[in-house]
Amino acid sequence: MVTSPVVNTYPLLSYTFGTKEPKMEKDTSVADRLARMKVNYMKEGMRTSVEAILLVQEHNHPHILLLQIGNTFCKLPGGRLKPGENEIEGLKRKLTSKLGANSPALVPDWQIGECVAIWWRPNFETIMYPYCPPHITKPKECKKLFLVHLSEREYFAVPKNLKLLAVPLFELYDNVQRYGPVISTIPQQLSRFQFNMITA
Amino acid sequence: MVTSPVVNTYPLLSYTFGTKEPKMEKDTSVADRLARMKVNYMKEGMRTSVEAILLVQEHNHPHILLLQIGNTFCKLPGGRLKPGENEIEGLKRKLTSKLGANSPALVPDWQIGECVAIWWRPNFETIMYPYCPPHITKPKECKKLFLVHLSEREYFAVPKNLKLLAVPLFELYDNVQRYGPVISTIPQQLSRFQFNMITA
Repeated sequence: MVTSPVVNTYPLLSYTFGTKEPKMEKDTSVADRLARMKVNYMKEGMRTSVEAILLVQEHNHPHILLLQIGNTFCKLPGGRLKPGENEIEGLKRKLTSKLGANSPALVPDWQIGECVAIWWRPNFETIMYPYCPPHITKPKECKKLFLVHLSEREYFAVPKNLKLLAVPLFELYDNVQRYGPVISTIPQQLSRFQFNMITA
Repeated sequence: MVTSPVVNTYPLLSYTFGTKEPKMEKDTSVADRLARMKVNYMKEGMRTSVEAILLVQEHNHPHILLLQIGNTFCKLPGGRLKPGENEIEGLKRKLTSKLGANSPALVPDWQIGECVAIWWRPNFETIMYPYCPPHITKPKECKKLFLVHLSEREYFAVPKNLKLLAVPLFELYDNVQRYGPVISTIPQQLSRFQFNMITA
């Protein structure tokens, strides 16, 4: 038999959550965000962003940690790489910036695992595709999603303007209206993994 | 940088297609199919099915080979394993039954690759999920999708009652109405691969 890769998932309760200074969004509107993306593209070329899938378990079902901004918008922790930056190092930097404590000793030793999805932005628009569409020779962004293997105990410091939610796969699945196309298809992309649900 | 697994894809034109005797569906309705599933479950326990993603390229964009029954319904080549059958051997047997020539010398040497998705059927119903839903202790079916690496030249014998279609990823994507939840999210599950498009 083919063995699926095994991912250990620990109870949400085994993690500790604190707060830290707010991390404000750089843009206040989608239009501002796309305009800034265009300016950066002119300077640096295609944007590469990296995002993390952090898994925990509750009631023996996998949950994903999402950052909620305001009352509705959710995103994966992560962000844009600096030009030439290594993907793994860049994702660690972004995770520490978003969720690491101010004291370095408390910052998790991020274990970046499998790349589970790659999305492409063909134009300076919000729409992205899970392939580079035909005839697009200069995509504007490439976004990669990585599984991050958490250890049994971690401390996360959540910026005060954000909420960290543990959202079950069954809530994300088939819920593009609430979570958008990238996050709502994570359950399908994780289906090939075998989750080893560790209880406290 | 993390390297994505590379998949060679050859032009559709490099493959040869013939026909063979019809392979009729065992059931003439969804109700019949679910009833037969129930009978088999009583005898053999959970059904395990295996299906193949066969990739070709046209215009530098990946296409998936689908079997069309009648004018609308499409499915991946594959089928149900015998009790205790090895997944890889079972998928090879199913592929030969569906697409192999009657002459063994012409049957492709099927190279079964990565498992890209696993779907669960909790009840004797058509709905499946990309995870085993909470509180379901006895799922009725587990369906696994595997990437199959085709070599540069192959001969496929298509049963006369079926059509073999090469469908581009951009046609499958976000098209659950036409292809259903399993096939329409293959583009997202393949997004992590890098396609090496080989031209003739």
